[in-house]
Amino acid sequence: MTLDLVVPQESGDEARLAALTVLAQQVRELVDAVVLTDVPEDEVTAVTAEIVALADRLNATRRATPLPHEFGPDGRFRHLGNAVTGEANPHALPLVIERTADGVSRAEVTFRPAHEGPPGSVHGGVSAMILDHLLGDAVATSGRPSVTGTLSIRYRQPVPYGEPLVASAAVSRGEGRKTWADGAIVSSEGKTLVEATALFITPAQWMDGYQPTENG
Amino acid sequence: MTLDLVVPQESGDEARLAALTVLAQQVRELVDAVVLTDVPEDEVTAVTAEIVALADRLNATRRATPLPHEFGPDGRFRHLGNAVTGEANPHALPLVIERTADGVSRAEVTFRPAHEGPPGSVHGGVSAMILDHLLGDAVATSGRPSVTGTLSIRYRQPVPYGEPLVASAAVSRGEGRKTWADGAIVSSEGKTLVEATALFITPAQWMDGYQPTENG
Repeated sequence: MTLDLVVPQESGDEARLAALTVLAQQVRELVDAVVLTDVPEDEVTAVTAEIVALADRLNATRRATPLPHEFGPDGRFRHLGNAVTGEANPHALPLVIERTADGVSRAEVTFRPAHEGPPGSVHGGVSAMILDHLLGDAVATSGRPSVTGTLSIRYRQPVPYGEPLVASAAVSRGEGRKTWADGAIVSSEGKTLVEATALFITPAQWMDGYQPTENG
Repeated sequence: MTLDLVVPQESGDEARLAALTVLAQQVRELVDAVVLTDVPEDEVTAVTAEIVALADRLNATRRATPLPHEFGPDGRFRHLGNAVTGEANPHALPLVIERTADGVSRAEVTFRPAHEGPPGSVHGGVSAMILDHLLGDAVATSGRPSVTGTLSIRYRQPVPYGEPLVASAAVSRGEGRKTWADGAIVSSEGKTLVEATALFITPAQWMDGYQPTENG
């Protein structure tokens, strides 16, 4: 990671990016449709052929890498291609993070059937993925630029999909080049489902003047 | 989780399931096409409309839940709808796990642009997601039926996408109702990129005769 990350790059115009975020959302809904469909085999095959043709149309002009880490027109950092938060990436939930005045990074999260692990529950790895990002976000926005050293996840209760949950994280302690953050996924009734703690390390060469970006 | 999980359920016939896995793979390629496309806005919008129509076709008959945990015709446990391993779930890599005679669960993994976190690298949360599953698989197949208690991930090096890597895990120790497993993601040159350790707990009611299934 170097400073040139924060130089605006060519994402394309904002209207086109907005169209891409709508496309990504529709592809998320397509993913769940694939996971839940019960249509007959010939219809599955017919839809597959059309999906191939649509991917070809999108691939007619193809970037080498996802949409970049950059500052948006509102001056906020964004990474529309991010696997967890990227609004233009169908793999992303996407996690939409608000930051409170007291240093909490918070996201309302509704997992989907495509996130299933145990029957009727969210895959533990998906919970870990979300918490990894949220703890990193809390540390990045705290002004302690760091990379994740160790992430620990404690599974307390099954995490349901299809209902609104809250995930949050905040820095708990800093000491020299080390920073600790804690986070959790909590049900709408306030029950803690999954907890996380992470230790972040500031590389020596970042100790002087590097401005952090949150990027997973 | 109860024993009735392992009673064969209605996934549909094998030919239709095979067609669904082809559909899921094409949707994975569509996801990367969305992440990388550089076509103009009007084409993005036109493709979006077609995606919506295809999702509607798949939703014409819709299950309430993903394809179940079950035994396939080869007698092996499978969960085609799984978020990490499900061949019929476009969210899944999918992780294809081989089990060696000495108790190692091993998967060749090539991450894709849709998995990006830091520029040019795989999101740390995606690495955590894969390792969570693989450690659980190693414990499940060891004959020590358990649920994940704590998962710890140590990030050593950036994980690249677009090149073949190897992820593996094995049980390292068992003691009463506790089981520990270790795993890693390693480059093709043998460099350890990410390490993981997890503590698994056997619920008291499983101590007598429960047969495990791997399910994340």
